[in-house]
Amino acid sequence: MKIQTSKIDTIIHATWIAPVEPVDTLHHHYSIAIHDGRIQDLLPKQDILDKYLADVEITLDNHLLIPGLINTHTHSPMSLMRGLADDLPLMDWLNNHIWPTEQQHVSAEFVLDGSLLACAEMIKSGTTCFNDMYFFPEITARAVEQAGMRAKLGLILIDFPSAWASDADEYLAKGIELHDKLRSNSLISTAFAPHAPYTVSDAPLKRITTYAEELDIPVHIHLHETADEVEQAVSESGQRPIARLNELGLLSPRLLAVHMTQLNDDEIALIAETGAHVLHCPESNLKLASGFCPTFKLQQAGINISLGTDGAASNNDLDMISEMHTAALLAKAVANNASALPAEDILRMATINGAIALGLDSEIGSLEVGKSADITAVDLGGIENQPVYCPVSQLIYSAGRENVTNVWVAGNHLLKDKELTTLDEKAILEKAHYWQEKINT
Amino acid sequence: MKIQTSKIDTIIHATWIAPVEPVDTLHHHYSIAIHDGRIQDLLPKQDILDKYLADVEITLDNHLLIPGLINTHTHSPMSLMRGLADDLPLMDWLNNHIWPTEQQHVSAEFVLDGSLLACAEMIKSGTTCFNDMYFFPEITARAVEQAGMRAKLGLILIDFPSAWASDADEYLAKGIELHDKLRSNSLISTAFAPHAPYTVSDAPLKRITTYAEELDIPVHIHLHETADEVEQAVSESGQRPIARLNELGLLSPRLLAVHMTQLNDDEIALIAETGAHVLHCPESNLKLASGFCPTFKLQQAGINISLGTDGAASNNDLDMISEMHTAALLAKAVANNASALPAEDILRMATINGAIALGLDSEIGSLEVGKSADITAVDLGGIENQPVYCPVSQLIYSAGRENVTNVWVAGNHLLKDKELTTLDEKAILEKAHYWQEKINT
Repeated sequence: MKIQTSKIDTIIHATWIAPVEPVDTLHHHYSIAIHDGRIQDLLPKQDILDKYLADVEITLDNHLLIPGLINTHTHSPMSLMRGLADDLPLMDWLNNHIWPTEQQHVSAEFVLDGSLLACAEMIKSGTTCFNDMYFFPEITARAVEQAGMRAKLGLILIDFPSAWASDADEYLAKGIELHDKLRSNSLISTAFAPHAPYTVSDAPLKRITTYAEELDIPVHIHLHETADEVEQAVSESGQRPIARLNELGLLSPRLLAVHMTQLNDDEIALIAETGAHVLHCPESNLKLASGFCPTFKLQQAGINISLGTDGAASNNDLDMISEMHTAALLAKAVANNASALPAEDILRMATINGAIALGLDSEIGSLEVGKSADITAVDLGGIENQPVYCPVSQLIYSAGRENVTNVWVAGNHLLKDKELTTLDEKAILEKAHYWQEKINT
Repeated sequence: MKIQTSKIDTIIHATWIAPVEPVDTLHHHYSIAIHDGRIQDLLPKQDILDKYLADVEITLDNHLLIPGLINTHTHSPMSLMRGLADDLPLMDWLNNHIWPTEQQHVSAEFVLDGSLLACAEMIKSGTTCFNDMYFFPEITARAVEQAGMRAKLGLILIDFPSAWASDADEYLAKGIELHDKLRSNSLISTAFAPHAPYTVSDAPLKRITTYAEELDIPVHIHLHETADEVEQAVSESGQRPIARLNELGLLSPRLLAVHMTQLNDDEIALIAETGAHVLHCPESNLKLASGFCPTFKLQQAGINISLGTDGAASNNDLDMISEMHTAALLAKAVANNASALPAEDILRMATINGAIALGLDSEIGSLEVGKSADITAVDLGGIENQPVYCPVSQLIYSAGRENVTNVWVAGNHLLKDKELTTLDEKAILEKAHYWQEKINT
């Protein structure tokens, strides 16, 4: 007896599917059924064909399907400053290059063009969701909507004035206004984003602690990025930044602590105990010689670690495939243990762990029935990935962003055979050239 | 008055050319004239057009031309074991996975198919020359000839028998036979390749020292790869491996010392004094948790450092663009100095320094008039590399292997708009599938 078939939007057949949940699962010759933007089913190919009839049916031979990658720390508009001032120490780079350039050029127009460039780069490299921190987040929201991506936008706050706001009151007011505006947006949400302990004073940090609880949103902050940051805080206040944030009540499962390269055992225990998340940016930490985040130690302590690229001015890309590669390699050398953070764990860092950190794990981070259809397809059929003994290993250790062929967010096909469907690549490139000329003169 | 034009083979016009020599030079809108496999001229575009008329004229807008990349340490046939046993410590990986697989499968056929797969991957990612170490080097020579690449093939020697040779005498005899056979080959030459201090005893190392001087070729060896290697040598013989090699007379400008993650200050001084070269493989060192090669310290000591990918079984790719990226990032974190090994220095490591190590710097390693036309073109026009403030920075920090579009070796166009001209990609992939099935069962 033929089973009655249901009519649905899309079926994707793939050689391999790594759903991330359940742990260490790898499906061979399975298919995903998508309807109304959600994963309707995940079964062996023939079972899907027996149950469903789809408007669109896509067969991806030699491809691995994974949950869309989640970039948990970036400054998307800074893509316009990619490679502007390389090979410099963090404070020289910030004080003498990045901040002066920002002071001169950052505007709504800059943020829109930079965010669109960033969204295009992220979609093409398999990222479906990002956690951002920059000025004019309401403008980045427009770029994200145009791209059809998912994002958590940081409501930035910094003690000095910018083109966006003049003081803590204005930063907070504008941030909360944006939060209210996005309240019913299914793809874009917000987090408070006080820049760093050394750029935000106690009073606004206290207000953010209170508001974050009231609004039930995360607090995204650079923390213990360099030894200098920690030493300077100690010499000025007698306190390490984590201790100060703890006194201010910021250490909780809401806290998204970025970088964290300088941690003693007590601090690791405290982070674990309070449930704060570590947003690990290995390439930025290496390039700026900030230090080594002890990811294996953090994992052993039960801390949730997610991955981020940081901004393209300090990375210099928004490529999560390469970031997974670097995170996997570096974890082993830092732990002095070649078995530390195997490929499967790294994929979790770039997917479900990011979703957990952002409070979005009921919606994204794994390919499970009922979750949103945020999916990335990676072609492992080329010379550079052959032979394939273990597809997840190949993804982490040999694949590159160029192997990403298709991307869906909430069932929408944003990248189709390597072509962007929502963004105009040519127009974005023209804007990049325009800003290059303008910033260079 | 119109200048008389000469008839030549090829002209390449490019937006940027980084010739590597002279140091830190970057040409805008220059062109390269190629004749009889050599660089005939390098001038502003109009000057080239005034002087030469070419059979083939190629315009590469948005491209950076660099000397063909030189991968100074790999085991090319091991590409067939890419990702076979990841996330394991070095000795477990070697003893329980790689060596048993090799014992069962390595043959002339395996080496041919693996070498062809490796050559295809290397050409596609911009590598024009590689320094290899594996069994059946005469078979790898066939693959290299078919590919049209340049290589220095290691005359391997190891204390235990393999499918290629049964003892030191046979390894040496077969090696010297191949050396003689290749004596008049313009693209392929040889080096002795005793595997490592812990796998080759004193007697064959002494003979290699003598023969290397007589034949005037380098000695390519894994050295101080891990702390275990050094500790075990000390506990067995009371000597660190570098001290032993020094006693055996191996420390000289002929020595190509691979890995070198465990070095005290005296050893660094000794390496500098003797003129030995360090072949740095950052991704392999990280992945196998071997340790950190102190590249900035070595550079400060005046030691010549080149780059290698290691074999695809431990990397897991033969991608020199990604290796440059990792080398650049890691050097800074290890030196605790964000200005250590800037982009220009890293490009030198992957080109001229490699040529110097291999004794080929009169022929390759820079784009200079009279040298062989071994050239790689990298397209910086895509979203992921825009805007371009500094093309060499973009090459090291944001470009990927997929941005390589054209490759020439001795003027032969081996990669043409991303298509291999000398190798059959489909046939190579079929062989990779064949070996995957065979090794997996």
